Amino acid sequence: MTYRVAISVSSFAETDKEPMRILEEAGAEIIENPYKRRMNEEEIIKHLHGVDGLIAGLEPLNEMVLKSSSKLKAIARVGIGMDNIDLGVAEALNIRVSNTPDGPTEAVAELCLTALLSMGRRIIRFNKDLHEGVWKKQMGVGLKGRKILLIGYGRIGKKFGEYLEFFGADIYVTDPRLEQTDLVKNEKLVSLNIGLKEAEVISLHSSGTSVILGEAEFQKMRSGMVLLNSARGELIDENAFVHALGNGTVKSAWIDTFSEEPYDGPLKEFEQVLLTPHVSTYTTQCRKSMESAAVKNLLFDLDRSVHNHSK
Amino acid sequence: MTYRVAISVSSFAETDKEPMRILEEAGAEIIENPYKRRMNEEEIIKHLHGVDGLIAGLEPLNEMVLKSSSKLKAIARVGIGMDNIDLGVAEALNIRVSNTPDGPTEAVAELCLTALLSMGRRIIRFNKDLHEGVWKKQMGVGLKGRKILLIGYGRIGKKFGEYLEFFGADIYVTDPRLEQTDLVKNEKLVSLNIGLKEAEVISLHSSGTSVILGEAEFQKMRSGMVLLNSARGELIDENAFVHALGNGTVKSAWIDTFSEEPYDGPLKEFEQVLLTPHVSTYTTQCRKSMESAAVKNLLFDLDRSVHNHSK
Repeated sequence: MTYRVAISVSSFAETDKEPMRILEEAGAEIIENPYKRRMNEEEIIKHLHGVDGLIAGLEPLNEMVLKSSSKLKAIARVGIGMDNIDLGVAEALNIRVSNTPDGPTEAVAELCLTALLSMGRRIIRFNKDLHEGVWKKQMGVGLKGRKILLIGYGRIGKKFGEYLEFFGADIYVTDPRLEQTDLVKNEKLVSLNIGLKEAEVISLHSSGTSVILGEAEFQKMRSGMVLLNSARGELIDENAFVHALGNGTVKSAWIDTFSEEPYDGPLKEFEQVLLTPHVSTYTTQCRKSMESAAVKNLLFDLDRSVHNHSK
Repeated sequence: MTYRVAISVSSFAETDKEPMRILEEAGAEIIENPYKRRMNEEEIIKHLHGVDGLIAGLEPLNEMVLKSSSKLKAIARVGIGMDNIDLGVAEALNIRVSNTPDGPTEAVAELCLTALLSMGRRIIRFNKDLHEGVWKKQMGVGLKGRKILLIGYGRIGKKFGEYLEFFGADIYVTDPRLEQTDLVKNEKLVSLNIGLKEAEVISLHSSGTSVILGEAEFQKMRSGMVLLNSARGELIDENAFVHALGNGTVKSAWIDTFSEEPYDGPLKEFEQVLLTPHVSTYTTQCRKSMESAAVKNLLFDLDRSVHNHSK
């Protein structure tokens, strides 16, 4: 059985050919994204014509698109989010939908570690100084014995905790859904309140879009703390955050996600805030792993569809 | 028995009081460094008058100084290097000398990791862009599966290898003194020649001051490789290095040690070279660990001196 597989991801297999090789070895007829960018509704409808399966990006896979794609049996998202897919309509049409929840875990946790180490060891400041001919040593801080609060303990929080523990940090976890026995090693389960007061570093790993760190929470924190946000911009009240930067509660921070992107807000003015453009999953290793997983998911779902013949 | 202990280290116990507490609990009479900077010959002679033991920095402890300090029984260096101490004269005078070789291992390996991660994940570029209002994502590279050559496998090379292996990197080691069975886990022992050709990242961890990476070695390297030097500036021929940066052999590099410090040379002109001012041991954790170790070494040596009564 030969499948026609469309790819809508704009940069598929660009960093590593392995995912494409798996598709080719399965004998799939492959239709690549001719636009090399995210497609709109009209373009994706045309792209899906006569297609059995889709390796999907973030293009709109709404009711209109899915109903126009009469042969489509499976969609495999390269990534976690599925907000672009009308899952109810897909289910009604017997289109199987998958995503790759494990792919980004290591890449995100690795960037969290990178950011925390870089700030602690002051490398941005040192590098700037030296390139300007200024030789000025200053003491930094490593990970050993540092009190770090993880807010949220899903895949990424857990992985970051594992990394930090390897380097001898002292891990606190707050997550309303957890019991102490859910924790992996020596992490301590605490209330948010206790965690805010104790932690030298706070890192957000929650889902949801409601504010977790607002004015009241910043007031409870230790002076000179370090804040990390790779989860969602909405979890932090930016006005309260800017105030906490101004009064020294937050000594330094790393922010990778913003409630509005591209970001162009007040944090730009703070040299002590390390800013990255939502790139926590942007590694060649992560792309390869997610793309390969998506291809395998798609082939698995197409085989099941054919055997069940429910469509 | 009460000891008079002089401290010449300029910032002793500044980051953590623990080392001072150990001295106090031993009942030592403590003479701190009044200058808060490195002492010269005249100053250290005066400082050592009537003193039993010295917690030493890098001040000159030459023949003249040691012979002027008639009561001195032990010197404990906070750090590794002992070039400032005339060891032959110390031995002749029955002055016991110790250093703290283990103290900096973790701090140095941690900064190596910080530098490699920061370059791979492009955080300096991203941070600069965002602070200037430019939102530009680019693919980075993590540690998993990366081929990394460690040149030298002493305390620090071994520790850095352990860190890299934890993150799934592929480790090659070259060190003329080693056998494959000396390696800790999955590292592969290779010749320098093979290592230079295979490695995507090369990190120097050798002792000595003769050039290891000269023109011939840069010519053998893969195009687009990454170079790390936290060991000694003299190990790299800077002209050959600058040439390799210019022709793309070296894509990015991190340099923390220079043959002349403060550094003010041509590497300043290369944005792709991350520069830090010889700060690989500059963490509060490392200072505390080295200072505490030096205090314990000193007290141990003083007790032995008294029991042996050889002076």
